[in-house]
Order: sequence, then C-alpha cells, then structure tokens
Amino acid sequence: MKRIKLTVSYDGTNYHGWQIQNNGITIESELNRALTDLFGTEIIVTGASRTDAGVHAIGNVAVFDVETRMPAEKIAYALNARLPEDIIVQTSEEVSDDFHPRHCDCEKTYEYRILNRKMPLPNVRLNSHFICYDLNIELMKEAASCFIGYHDFKSFCAAGSQVQDTHRTIYSLEVNKYDDMITIRVRGNGFLYNMVRIIAGTLIEVGKGRIKPEDIENIISGADRKLAGPTAPAKGLTLVEIRYKK
Amino acid sequence: MKRIKLTVSYDGTNYHGWQIQNNGITIESELNRALTDLFGTEIIVTGASRTDAGVHAIGNVAVFDVETRMPAEKIAYALNARLPEDIIVQTSEEVSDDFHPRHCDCEKTYEYRILNRKMPLPNVRLNSHFICYDLNIELMKEAASCFIGYHDFKSFCAAGSQVQDTHRTIYSLEVNKYDDMITIRVRGNGFLYNMVRIIAGTLIEVGKGRIKPEDIENIISGADRKLAGPTAPAKGLTLVEIRYKK
Repeated sequence: MKRIKLTVSYDGTNYHGWQIQNNGITIESELNRALTDLFGTEIIVTGASRTDAGVHAIGNVAVFDVETRMPAEKIAYALNARLPEDIIVQTSEEVSDDFHPRHCDCEKTYEYRILNRKMPLPNVRLNSHFICYDLNIELMKEAASCFIGYHDFKSFCAAGSQVQDTHRTIYSLEVNKYDDMITIRVRGNGFLYNMVRIIAGTLIEVGKGRIKPEDIENIISGADRKLAGPTAPAKGLTLVEIRYKK
Repeated sequence: MKRIKLTVSYDGTNYHGWQIQNNGITIESELNRALTDLFGTEIIVTGASRTDAGVHAIGNVAVFDVETRMPAEKIAYALNARLPEDIIVQTSEEVSDDFHPRHCDCEKTYEYRILNRKMPLPNVRLNSHFICYDLNIELMKEAASCFIGYHDFKSFCAAGSQVQDTHRTIYSLEVNKYDDMITIRVRGNGFLYNMVRIIAGTLIEVGKGRIKPEDIENIISGADRKLAGPTAPAKGLTLVEIRYKK
C-alpha cells in the first residue's frame, strides 16, 4: 500500500466547496470519482484545507492510499485526463505512511484579490472582489503589519465556529497593488474558519477610512467577532500553498 | 441626435465573437439588445474590431446614435445593469457626428498570453494558451524586434482573406515573462485577419527552437502564409485598447 499526496489546483466557481455534500458537486467528490475510476477500487481522499464554496486553490493538498504499480508521479497526468478542466492536479508523489495533511505541522499561504477601479473587468470577475471606492493602500499596509505574530484571533473567526483554541501565528501579511489589483497575501501556521476573509474585510474597511490602522490592536485584543469588519466574498480568495515541515 | 462612443470589455469565452450571427449570441447582439431595451427604440452599434469567437477585450469600441436626454456618461451604468456579467461597458461619451470607429486613424494594442509551465492552472484557463514545453523567452524577444515597422504582413494574414493591401505598421512588439505567464503585447495602426494570433504562433515556434529569430525577416519578405507559424488559439488573445488620433 502506498500513500500518495496530491497538490490540487481549482477554480472554485462551479463547486460547492471542497467537502463532500449531499446536494452539489464538490472538489473532493470529483477527486474521489476520478481516483475510483482510475484505480478501479473505491478511493476516498483526505484533504488539507476544506475550502468554502467559491474559494479557489493553486496548491491545496489531498492524500489517499492505494495498491498500485503506477509510478506516483504519473498519477497526476492520469487523473487530469479524468477531471474537469477547472480542477487540475499539479503533482502526485509518494509520502510516508504517517503523513496526514491536517495533523502535520505546516505553513499555509492565502491570497485575497481586490479589483479597485471605477468599473469591473470581465476577465477577473470570478477570482477577485470588485470595489469601486478608492481604497487607501498605505493605510491598509499599515494595518496589515498589526496582524503579524502569535495572537488570539477570536475576533477574526466566524461566529458559531466550534474551535477551542483561537490562537494562531501569522508569519507575514503583505498588501500590494499592481495596476488596479490589490493583493493581500497572508502566511500562517493555520487559520480559523473564515479568518482570511474577515481579515480581508477588515483591511477593506481600513482602506475606506472606516477603521483606523491603530484600531487593529484593540480589535484583536477585544476577542469579539463584532469588532472586526465583514467577511469578504469567497470568490476573491485563493489558497496558494501549503508547505509541510519535515 | 447624439453619437455615443462606448468602450466595451468582455470575456469572449461564451460568445460567438463580436459580429451578429444567425446562430449564437455575440457581443454585438447583446449590446444591441441592451441598448434597445434602455432607449425603447431599436439601436444597432457599429464596432471598431470584430473580434473572433473566444477572443477577449478590455477596450473594444462601439458607436451608436440616439435621441436622449440621458447624460452620455450615465449610459455605461444603465447598460451594465442590462448586460450579462461577462460584458462590461467601461465608459460612454458623446463624440462628434463624423466619428466612425473603423474609418478613423487609430492605434490598436493587443495582448497574447501564454501560460508556460508543466501543468495548466484552472484560474487562467479561459484567457491564456497553455504550453508545457519550455519556451526560450530570449529568442522570442529577439524575433519580436524584427516585426517592428512598416511591412507587407501577407505571411501573417489568414489564407482566404479578401483584404487588398496587406501593408501595416507595427509600432511596438514586446515579449515579457512574469512568473509562468508570457505576454506578447503588440501595438500597431491596424491588423490583418488573424495577424496577432499568427505572430503569436510564430513566436511560439521561435520559443520552441523550430524557427530562428533571423528567419523572421525572410518569412515577412516571402509574403506567403505557409512560411509563418500556426494561428495560436483565440482564447489567449485580448484586445487591450484602441486609441484614436484627433
């Protein structure tokens, strides 16, 4: 039996998120279907990050076990021939038996994209959030730096989440602008439910002048979801990379 | 009667090109429908560039005449409320009665995008051409410079085109690479049918080492479509801008 790790990219527009549901196609259900078809035996993947409906990925991770003589690195190509064009397996590799995509130490990188101009652009409508108000990028950069480090991010966790410990570490949080596209790129050791989208929504309020950069410290220490900004829409979010520590 | 100029952006994926057809929805038919609905009288636009099926635009231009008291710059917003989300009017402005989008002197800018990596990426699948072979960007840059200037571009015109004069001027042709995305950006005083896609297809052959940069001069002077590379796929092409001279 081999344990295989897949790096999976997808356009989340047409899926009900990662996790299998009774109603609606998901990334996980498509992967299971393609793998079961490829190997002729039922295969169920374990995903690293159960992204929400509409969220995209360049490098989500899924793991499964299989008895096969197919070289591990060929599995990606065989799967892509069985997957729709908006789900593409980037790499497939054999990993040790004890590797688990959620229970191993890792760093995750997410990017949130905001198109900031007078009119929307059709070509990026599915993977960015459009805002016509002029956002102050310098204020957003200043606010971003306050998130870095080990904090209780309870204010940035969706209300109703069952998680016990709301402490996380953010290693970096960068706000940049290229032409009309603002990107918020955040790297951390894990994220609470909706955390990146609430950080993005809060930074947007900062860009509009409704929250001041110096308020961020109090929003964090207040540990109350109501203090932070709204949850920014799913379609602007992309899971860029998951890096596992040895 | 006012003459109104629209700057129109669209994702061409779901359309049978610009020009009205008997079978299939086009950009032009959608604009006519939305304008006729808005003004309550039949309106037919005249387009600047009749882009092919699958080709995208950021700034194509359309013109129409209308009797209205609506301020010209408000028309864009009223139209967008009546258009699908993959067609967005960027600006609307009044122009002089004698302005014609095809019979006025102009500069057009096109961009051709090539995703050059081992595996495709879902998020750019609809607006770039994927090539897994490693393209030599330096050779492509060298070849690009040979196109600049006033030339007979007959070798870069779709066979069967009825155009009389195949001379055109290319002002600039730049090849760049950001991460895995190669962009070919070309600016000229007009382009023959499929000219940008044949230039892109030829530069791809150069990048693969099948055509040498020093061959471009002979391909141009040979004035024979068979000498140039294949026509690159439509989905990689975007009409970026049309700039009219006063």
